[in-house]
Amino acid sequence: MPNPVLVEVTRGDLVESIHRGAVAIVDAAGAVRFSLGDIDAPIYTRSALKPFQALPLVESGAAEAFGVSDEEVALACASHSGESMHTTRVAAWLKRIGCSEADLICGPQTPRHEPTLQTMAETHEKPSRLHNNCSGKHAGFLTVAKHLGAPTADYVNISHPVQKAILESVSRLSDYRDPAWGIDGCAAPNFALPLTAFARALARLATGQTPGAARILKSMTTYPELVAGTGRHCTALMRAAQGKVAVKLGAEGVYAAMLPELGLGVALKIDDGAMRAAETAIAFVLEKLNVIPAGYATAPVVNTRGATVGERRPAEALQGIG
Amino acid sequence: MPNPVLVEVTRGDLVESIHRGAVAIVDAAGAVRFSLGDIDAPIYTRSALKPFQALPLVESGAAEAFGVSDEEVALACASHSGESMHTTRVAAWLKRIGCSEADLICGPQTPRHEPTLQTMAETHEKPSRLHNNCSGKHAGFLTVAKHLGAPTADYVNISHPVQKAILESVSRLSDYRDPAWGIDGCAAPNFALPLTAFARALARLATGQTPGAARILKSMTTYPELVAGTGRHCTALMRAAQGKVAVKLGAEGVYAAMLPELGLGVALKIDDGAMRAAETAIAFVLEKLNVIPAGYATAPVVNTRGATVGERRPAEALQGIG
Repeated sequence: MPNPVLVEVTRGDLVESIHRGAVAIVDAAGAVRFSLGDIDAPIYTRSALKPFQALPLVESGAAEAFGVSDEEVALACASHSGESMHTTRVAAWLKRIGCSEADLICGPQTPRHEPTLQTMAETHEKPSRLHNNCSGKHAGFLTVAKHLGAPTADYVNISHPVQKAILESVSRLSDYRDPAWGIDGCAAPNFALPLTAFARALARLATGQTPGAARILKSMTTYPELVAGTGRHCTALMRAAQGKVAVKLGAEGVYAAMLPELGLGVALKIDDGAMRAAETAIAFVLEKLNVIPAGYATAPVVNTRGATVGERRPAEALQGIG
Repeated sequence: MPNPVLVEVTRGDLVESIHRGAVAIVDAAGAVRFSLGDIDAPIYTRSALKPFQALPLVESGAAEAFGVSDEEVALACASHSGESMHTTRVAAWLKRIGCSEADLICGPQTPRHEPTLQTMAETHEKPSRLHNNCSGKHAGFLTVAKHLGAPTADYVNISHPVQKAILESVSRLSDYRDPAWGIDGCAAPNFALPLTAFARALARLATGQTPGAARILKSMTTYPELVAGTGRHCTALMRAAQGKVAVKLGAEGVYAAMLPELGLGVALKIDDGAMRAAETAIAFVLEKLNVIPAGYATAPVVNTRGATVGERRPAEALQGIG
């Protein structure tokens, strides 16, 4: 059975496009508090996995050994926009652990921050690996590898100690063993979990059921601009929530949320991979759970003249939450 | 009943995202030769409507009166990339009819052609209305307005003679009256047609059942780089087909094709609006109809390291064509 429509995009009097998907809201005991659609099929968690990929950095003792700051932990959890506030911090972190941009295995990526792009165009600067939205995650991987005395050359190999430590964390917190995996945009392994298992793990991170959890959440919610960037959706939601939620998007329509006060984890995936729909859906869930004020879920469809010609909005199925 | 899955995107061993949609292949007599999904619900035709929006330019005598070239007719049908080959031609055309960029009602738009963007960034040039992907269409509207002695100030008003002439052409060729309409990205009215009606109109344009049809098709297939641009999908398909098909994409997952030799029109809409899926679906339809060689439908999913980590491909439902 197809997943329900979660988000609609209108133009004039018609619904022009629809986005189907699935959502799971789960508590730390593993009870499903609310769900829509197929929450049992594994989905690639993509960058929404980053808080778990950063856990070994904190829990192995690597962060302490290398004096990793909360800002750097936030960058380890980030899909950042490649702004100088991101790239300079990652570069300094790499230098401190005796590494450099050349040690990053992620490829170069065009920053998504427009003023940065404009400056780079003017100065003929090419995108580097530091600009890759995952460069902080990779700096975290290198820090753990150094701390464990493991090779730094092949840290994205599925059998490397860094990746094994991540898999152990993910499996332990999700109660889901031997997940399927694929290669992410940054060349790191990415695990596929059912939304139930992923939301369960997020609830357990939210409620501090693993030693590094509190630091991950504190770092993300204290430095939301480092987790994403200027004008970004994750950043705006975390600012609006004032510590009540840590959120992380993932490519292909994934969004994850950790709610410490409510003791909940939220995971959703848009079937077609559209980020616009994932943004509307997660914002509406957070509005219904009263952790952000209203106004983040709907968005106008604007034409090149600046006129509003339609609307992106949560669909009927989502109204049942909370 | 939800539309079938038309396109899948894989990563590793899993299907990561899916795209549902509907397709209609119709002949000039109006017989549906093949269909998938709901072909009776009206969908906004978006820029796939442009060949019809260019018909009054040819059929009113405006093109002849103002010496409009085939290159300019191709631009009237275009969603162009804002390259200098597009903007300089539109600017010259406007000047010839006694107009200028200021008369274009479409808003400024960032060109999608990367080298053009790079040059503009270096020279601090801001996007203009000429860069709007619809600037050729608007130049066509202005040419018709001038020829009819109608006001040039309000040519996107639904009751303006230019828009009335377009609606007459669309209704006549589609046998579909009083379509719903909304405002397109460029501020022009856009009509919503069922895929059956739209494909029927495309088949009739393909087979020359209106005086201006042959010139529209010839202009599009002779100058495919003006209809879209360097590296664009529409351009590549028309080049590959060597005159056997004229294609036109539309925003939010729409694609239209006119096949003169086979006497067919093809119209498709991806439910979620994803252009990547519309591109795969139309290319596969054209491959199955033997108007382009194999190889245009599937595409690798590549990460920032340049490694292939998945595939975009036509789904099972599309295999039944032809």
